Amino acid sequence: MIDQPIQYNAEAKLRLHFRGVMRVYISDLKDHVGKTVSLQGWVYNHRSSGKIKFLLMRDGTGICQCVYFRGECSDEAFTDFEKLTQETCVKVTGMVRAEPRSPGGYELSARELEINAGSVDYPISPKKHGTDFLMNQRHLWLRSKRQHAVMRVRAEVVKAIRDFFDGRGFTLTDAPIFTPSACEGTSTLFETKYFDEKAYLSQSGQLYMEATAAALGKVYCFGPTFRAEKSKTRRHLIEFWMVEPEVAFNDLYDNMELAEQFVEFVVQRVIVKREEELKTLERNVEGLKKVKAPFPRVHYREAVAMILKENPAFIDGNDFGGPDETIVSSKFEQPVFVHHFPSAIKAFYMKEDPKEPGYSMSCDLLAPEGYGEIIGGGQREDSYETLVRKIEEHKLNIKDFEWYLDLRKFGTFQHAGFGLGVERTVGWICGTQHVRETIPFPRLYGRNYP
Amino acid sequence: MIDQPIQYNAEAKLRLHFRGVMRVYISDLKDHVGKTVSLQGWVYNHRSSGKIKFLLMRDGTGICQCVYFRGECSDEAFTDFEKLTQETCVKVTGMVRAEPRSPGGYELSARELEINAGSVDYPISPKKHGTDFLMNQRHLWLRSKRQHAVMRVRAEVVKAIRDFFDGRGFTLTDAPIFTPSACEGTSTLFETKYFDEKAYLSQSGQLYMEATAAALGKVYCFGPTFRAEKSKTRRHLIEFWMVEPEVAFNDLYDNMELAEQFVEFVVQRVIVKREEELKTLERNVEGLKKVKAPFPRVHYREAVAMILKENPAFIDGNDFGGPDETIVSSKFEQPVFVHHFPSAIKAFYMKEDPKEPGYSMSCDLLAPEGYGEIIGGGQREDSYETLVRKIEEHKLNIKDFEWYLDLRKFGTFQHAGFGLGVERTVGWICGTQHVRETIPFPRLYGRNYP
Repeated sequence: MIDQPIQYNAEAKLRLHFRGVMRVYISDLKDHVGKTVSLQGWVYNHRSSGKIKFLLMRDGTGICQCVYFRGECSDEAFTDFEKLTQETCVKVTGMVRAEPRSPGGYELSARELEINAGSVDYPISPKKHGTDFLMNQRHLWLRSKRQHAVMRVRAEVVKAIRDFFDGRGFTLTDAPIFTPSACEGTSTLFETKYFDEKAYLSQSGQLYMEATAAALGKVYCFGPTFRAEKSKTRRHLIEFWMVEPEVAFNDLYDNMELAEQFVEFVVQRVIVKREEELKTLERNVEGLKKVKAPFPRVHYREAVAMILKENPAFIDGNDFGGPDETIVSSKFEQPVFVHHFPSAIKAFYMKEDPKEPGYSMSCDLLAPEGYGEIIGGGQREDSYETLVRKIEEHKLNIKDFEWYLDLRKFGTFQHAGFGLGVERTVGWICGTQHVRETIPFPRLYGRNYP
Repeated sequence: MIDQPIQYNAEAKLRLHFRGVMRVYISDLKDHVGKTVSLQGWVYNHRSSGKIKFLLMRDGTGICQCVYFRGECSDEAFTDFEKLTQETCVKVTGMVRAEPRSPGGYELSARELEINAGSVDYPISPKKHGTDFLMNQRHLWLRSKRQHAVMRVRAEVVKAIRDFFDGRGFTLTDAPIFTPSACEGTSTLFETKYFDEKAYLSQSGQLYMEATAAALGKVYCFGPTFRAEKSKTRRHLIEFWMVEPEVAFNDLYDNMELAEQFVEFVVQRVIVKREEELKTLERNVEGLKKVKAPFPRVHYREAVAMILKENPAFIDGNDFGGPDETIVSSKFEQPVFVHHFPSAIKAFYMKEDPKEPGYSMSCDLLAPEGYGEIIGGGQREDSYETLVRKIEEHKLNIKDFEWYLDLRKFGTFQHAGFGLGVERTVGWICGTQHVRETIPFPRLYGRNYP
């Protein structure tokens, strides 16, 4: 009962009438074959051809072909049809018919047409527009079929992420956005006046998840994070969503195991549930079907050897650039873990491997097909003394980390976690070239509109 | 298969050994009765009494009593037991026994004890501490039983919210945090430098949801929102989470119907799934069990009449203060809608009722038992000309709202939606006096730590 609650649509439908006819959503047409119903929505496309007129209308749940046949529809409807323009808001009444050639498999033998609101000079036409133009019209661009598909895949990715962790005994403990200090380097921080103090916008919820992992064992946070990066690459957003699980008593290897089961779960769920949308996006899902744990794992040094063969200018010890990641990931069909990055290029909280001085117990996961890093994580430093030294080496203010150091004072514990970037994951699954299409209202260097 | 994925715990357990013994979580003890297992976690409490010693340990999934009996456990364990302090990190090995008197119903006949990390002078003791002290120790305070219960209720509320909308064909379309303009008044805005421009932190995702409702029909966003309010009340946070559904073609009455079904769903789900936690919080759930749609609805003028009887100083036309809300809500067992607030005290985007000039098609939902407003919403202004006039009347910059006005230019449509504040809802369900306990790391006027 609790899990099978009242059908909102079903109840609401009883009240939603239009001249005594039930109003339904396009996605529900299959339940009304042979019946007369009303649809409310917008003109997606329309054409006339003598005695017959075709209206493709969209209502957000799908697209339906409505056919007006002279003599079978009202004369008024046949006349008013000529007033339609793209995105005119309409109500259409007619009989539902199964029609395999129609988008969605059903069409309406339309009888009536009510124009609710006009639309003059709608700026987005089927012709090709430049990216900057479309980004300025993002609020309207989202009405297109391709953007619908990406948004639905995104929503499914978010749901899969939450279902994975909720189903495994993790507790959601959201991290704050306002923080008193930086954790991922101070160069990419957004600052704001917080009454009489300064506050910074969160770059990651990880430090807070370490605190809640000590409280609740298995935890995650999932919210927006911010990096003031002045880079205009196809993989960077200023504001992006990240899920960050953290598990008490996990080590680096447990962490990679969790991450690969998680990524498998999300990808396999989404390609089944959003098959239609991925078809709309013309995404070849054969590669995605093969995303099954375990994933290959390569040591940083092995990855460097691969890179040097194709990019001899790469310097051992450095972090990978996008092209370097592609060199490594191209060697595998599956996503691939690179682990044990040099401590010098990782954050202060990453644990140095006692068996491999100079190398950290970190792991990144690189997506296949050149989509780059989608996960970064590892085992955290759990020694109070080492952590103090690292904070000093990184020239961070120890005062800001007092609470974080407390976690090493009172029953310190082995723990590990990771962060997965939602937009890069959606981009990979959808096969989009740029992350800007993977979030409803992208924020990029130089863009904060609409 | 997709919905019944790999059991992470089950697989991980195969690898998690401690001296050859399987490591389990306290929440899973029921599956291991009669077997020898290891637990990893922290000392919650401990006491010795001659030949027998009791350790209450917690691992984030629960609390387990571990009983050390001289002669039945190792001599080393019996000696090391004396070194335990609150929050010492330990591994305990022993045999699982059903024991109705033990918290959780199971206990461990302990054999071994491994101390992983000490804990000296843990600041939070069972004695009563002041609120400010506890708030400064929030990262540790979260380890207490009461805070665990609140956090789990919160996580369940979040899950119920998402399940409600995801299960009804809504598409999640998250709104941006960085916005170029204000929508809920400029006095409570946080400002930040966005490269060469200014940006404001979102006070509400609603305007963006109106755009995505035109694209996808039924949508919601769910994320943190920010209000720089210098008020120290028990209902206000600087940073709080809000879910905001918006539905194309809904009117004020559809909106109230959606809201009441939604609140019923969330409350009924949580009191069943989090029964144990609500017991821990000593929450009387009899009132919550009665939260069933439909909810009573009173017109603003009716509400004013109720208020004036008990607070004669109230001025008709004003917004309600906390005590005024309590006067109205105390007349009902159920949450109660107040609708048709004067247009003058509502935001510019709220539609004025053509049948009642001066009154808006708005609705607030007041929780019972004095927990105040948990929902605010209504039907949106859909006329381009009226909206332009309202923006001017509110002295807002029309340039900032160009994209928003486009929604009224291209196929404008009747629509309505609402916002529900997560922390107030959690506070009501948990029966907590102050919202500061309903979020992992609260941000209040004067508090941005830890």
